[in-house]
Amino acid sequence: MGISSLDKTSELYQLSKAGKLCVPAMNVNDSVTKQKFDNLYCCRESILDGLKRTTDVMFGGKQVVVCGYGEVGKGCCAALKALGAIVYITEIDPICALQACMDGFRVVKLNEVIRQVDVVITCTGNKNVVTREHLDRMKNSCIVCNMGHSNTEIDVTSLRTPELTWERVRSQVDHVIWPDGKRVVLLAEGRLLNLSCSTVPTFVLSITATTQALALIELYNAPEGRYKQDVYLLPKKMDEYVASLHLPSFDAHLTELTDDQAKYLGLNKNGPFKPNYYR
Amino acid sequence: MGISSLDKTSELYQLSKAGKLCVPAMNVNDSVTKQKFDNLYCCRESILDGLKRTTDVMFGGKQVVVCGYGEVGKGCCAALKALGAIVYITEIDPICALQACMDGFRVVKLNEVIRQVDVVITCTGNKNVVTREHLDRMKNSCIVCNMGHSNTEIDVTSLRTPELTWERVRSQVDHVIWPDGKRVVLLAEGRLLNLSCSTVPTFVLSITATTQALALIELYNAPEGRYKQDVYLLPKKMDEYVASLHLPSFDAHLTELTDDQAKYLGLNKNGPFKPNYYR
Amino acid sequence: MGISSLDKTSELYQLSKAGKLCVPAMNVNDSVTKQKFDNLYCCRESILDGLKRTTDVMFGGKQVVVCGYGEVGKGCCAALKALGAIVYITEIDPICALQACMDGFRVVKLNEVIRQVDVVITCTGNKNVVTREHLDRMKNSCIVCNMGHSNTEIDVTSLRTPELTWERVRSQVDHVIWPDGKRVVLLAEGRLLNLSCSTVPTFVLSITATTQALALIELYNAPEGRYKQDVYLLPKKMDEYVASLHLPSFDAHLTELTDDQAKYLGLNKNGPFKPNYYR
Amino acid sequence: MGISSLDKTSELYQLSKAGKLCVPAMNVNDSVTKQKFDNLYCCRESILDGLKRTTDVMFGGKQVVVCGYGEVGKGCCAALKALGAIVYITEIDPICALQACMDGFRVVKLNEVIRQVDVVITCTGNKNVVTREHLDRMKNSCIVCNMGHSNTEIDVTSLRTPELTWERVRSQVDHVIWPDGKRVVLLAEGRLLNLSCSTVPTFVLSITATTQALALIELYNAPEGRYKQDVYLLPKKMDEYVASLHLPSFDAHLTELTDDQAKYLGLNKNGPFKPNYYR
Repeated sequence: MGISSLDKTSELYQLSKAGKLCVPAMNVNDSVTKQKFDNLYCCRESILDGLKRTTDVMFGGKQVVVCGYGEVGKGCCAALKALGAIVYITEIDPICALQACMDGFRVVKLNEVIRQVDVVITCTGNKNVVTREHLDRMKNSCIVCNMGHSNTEIDVTSLRTPELTWERVRSQVDHVIWPDGKRVVLLAEGRLLNLSCSTVPTFVLSITATTQALALIELYNAPEGRYKQDVYLLPKKMDEYVASLHLPSFDAHLTELTDDQAKYLGLNKNGPFKPNYYR
Repeated sequence: MGISSLDKTSELYQLSKAGKLCVPAMNVNDSVTKQKFDNLYCCRESILDGLKRTTDVMFGGKQVVVCGYGEVGKGCCAALKALGAIVYITEIDPICALQACMDGFRVVKLNEVIRQVDVVITCTGNKNVVTREHLDRMKNSCIVCNMGHSNTEIDVTSLRTPELTWERVRSQVDHVIWPDGKRVVLLAEGRLLNLSCSTVPTFVLSITATTQALALIELYNAPEGRYKQDVYLLPKKMDEYVASLHLPSFDAHLTELTDDQAKYLGLNKNGPFKPNYYR
Repeated sequence: MGISSLDKTSELYQLSKAGKLCVPAMNVNDSVTKQKFDNLYCCRESILDGLKRTTDVMFGGKQVVVCGYGEVGKGCCAALKALGAIVYITEIDPICALQACMDGFRVVKLNEVIRQVDVVITCTGNKNVVTREHLDRMKNSCIVCNMGHSNTEIDVTSLRTPELTWERVRSQVDHVIWPDGKRVVLLAEGRLLNLSCSTVPTFVLSITATTQALALIELYNAPEGRYKQDVYLLPKKMDEYVASLHLPSFDAHLTELTDDQAKYLGLNKNGPFKPNYYR
Repeated sequence: MGISSLDKTSELYQLSKAGKLCVPAMNVNDSVTKQKFDNLYCCRESILDGLKRTTDVMFGGKQVVVCGYGEVGKGCCAALKALGAIVYITEIDPICALQACMDGFRVVKLNEVIRQVDVVITCTGNKNVVTREHLDRMKNSCIVCNMGHSNTEIDVTSLRTPELTWERVRSQVDHVIWPDGKRVVLLAEGRLLNLSCSTVPTFVLSITATTQALALIELYNAPEGRYKQDVYLLPKKMDEYVASLHLPSFDAHLTELTDDQAKYLGLNKNGPFKPNYYR
């Protein structure tokens, strides 16, 4: 199996841990190329696209809080910052939090900024990151959406109560209306904005499909015993191969190592060029 | 041993491979916090600082080629691009090359741009990346410097020939003069620009020193048998601890997982928050 | 009359020059607030929006040439660069060309890059900037669109010839097909992309409408003789007033001059704060 | 006289207003090229250079307040934001304040952020923008410097009181020490940081000197009666000429208008290409 979604990957590791995995599997989701394209580079564009198509909001000057500064969060933040938004981050992981600082974002708890922000974006992979209490405190017209991996990040269920009115104003856009008239703009009912309200570029699909295909070919062709009933990361060299197949469309020209340089670096001239843990 | 420089790290792995490592060792150099600060974030600033202090060059509009798009290269490129330079990349690794494309840089072979660039910066870890042939083809006043890991990247020895005149114009700055009067501006005789011509912020020193100290403490305190005579990556949790110690200086506020969320994610509330291979 | 479009503004100046203007008029189009919002800030977002909605193109790594580096061009370039595109500029005006250099863009003639670019964007206000000859030399799948002020910038008429086939692939998107199978992707038949294929944020409409309304009120209320049968720029103080009305939506807090400071600067505490020629 | 400094320019206008100007004068300071280079582009680099050389501060994650969002402020903010600082703006002019919002900066009163910022930079042209009261409230190690036009912006005199100790820690760097031990780091005693602590690139000097020389030549060669005893802006065409002389050093290639295009635009093929009020 060559599996690429986050949910499925977690399942694989759980099966493996439980000793219930009956075939070898590749964790394609965590290959470098897949990670960067499906998450960082793709979300950098789809956050803008998804927000524009649904709300026509202007980004310049808007205050935005992004929950989670992993690859998806990094992509969203870079794009929004570049277009003039003021971005705050929430994080549970100190390494990602420190990266956010160095990239020029204030790291806050959601409660510190929830009253002032114009947009709330979740990309944590966690659940109930935005609670009813947060939703109650948002200002009028605040936009709430999810770029994470499922529909759990925003507690949408908590909004299905009698005192709140839902108004569908456009496909994928609901106004949730409080008794005092305050409206929160909920996108895609809390499901994935990038899948529901924007398109995936063919280039990204190509990267992902190539990675999956290579993983399957590797598993199929591998000599007896190379892979056991466990979960494996894609070999670095294959990851590099996926990337190299996509360079010509950018007219990018790779440099080749000389024999002397390869020897100096202790590398094969054809790769892999980095240790497996390198990202 | 808690070792952080690239050269020493390579040596450790070679010793280990040869079965000659007689104590456990930590590869501190590849911990996330160390990598990002010593390389990406620090070089983002020191490339500007080093060039300014030595040459007073204006960055706006300058054409620059950066050899190598690893962490150091990424830092240099981000800073130079932000200040209005036009940046080209050379790479041997297709994954890094593809990242350069997505970040908006043309990936070229050095020969394609060597006649037109105003600045050449090496950050490959390789040797003879800039050869005498390249140096011969550079235009007048081209600045050449090294941000990589030793003094091998620019073939400086090839410039010690009778037909070329060296003129020391300022501390760390040599004009190498061709018979036709062309001058190439060589910084720090090809040694590390960031160490020779700029300063390391105390913040970065603090990150590095903390990482090293924790690695030593861990090795010292570890129960018999945890570490064998091999090279280990710093445990993720310690990497996170280093980061968390430095958050208060940015007034950054971490979010804590609820019990429910920790259970959902299958994480300990105190970390580690990511698998070891996560960067 | 309080007129804001570029075409109408030119007409006004021509009427005035010809002595045929029979009422005073305000050139609202060149007020600072109007210029920056309708052009710079709005186009920074609508170029991305217009391209995404019509072509789903990924911006990262794409080579783009932008013809014209005025306010519209500056907005387009900033956005595209931020999302990882490699941008080239063409310009007739050396001041704008020098600004492009300082902002990190190569300034070229269209012919130098026409074979290699993935996207061509016109924002010159000129005519026949993209000619049939250019179109003949574009590579397969090149996207061509116009962000300037009318439908003259791309010579679309030249594409209405028997040897070329037009295929409407989506609303506002035509494939023009050469005999050898090459396709050029023409958006909105060369009309304004931002008006045809993206939306204008209400915030920008508010700025423009406020400027126009204030101009009309000023013309209506002005004492006999303040305005003759000529074209006037909006008084600086009104321009400032438009801006100040829109600050609260960003929770922006202005600083007030002390009496002492106002005296030192020779300014009225309520503005205008800049000379009329200041932009 | 062809005068380029801000102080001298103000004096000229005052002399003119008072009827005391006895020769024609050019306000070179407000020519587009001069403004952009001496202020925007030059300060974008010198703020980083000045701060690094004096304090070795790391920019990433630092909170900075910039007083004044004119050309100098815009340059400082762009550079600091790009290197990962979190930047706040203070402004008196609503147009500049709105621009700051659209560029992604919070616009605040100095008092709102004075306790939390790591760096205070003045670029207003005003006096007493940073008062003793502000200085009293800054946190330990806060850096204070001036990029504006004279030594009036920071009320340095107010720091010459017996309860405060001054310690010269390095050339151009004073620690001012409060009785409780708090230190404020004052650069260049409040004089211009860019002149005192960084260098001016030769490219910028060339722009400025060319502009001044052309202004003098124009005044000298002008036919009797073209200029009266008043202050004039540099003719647009000369401004364009200065720019065009500096394009070759960036290998920038201007596009020329065809006869047909020039007629369509109502322009001379050799310029000027923009109305005088265009910036």
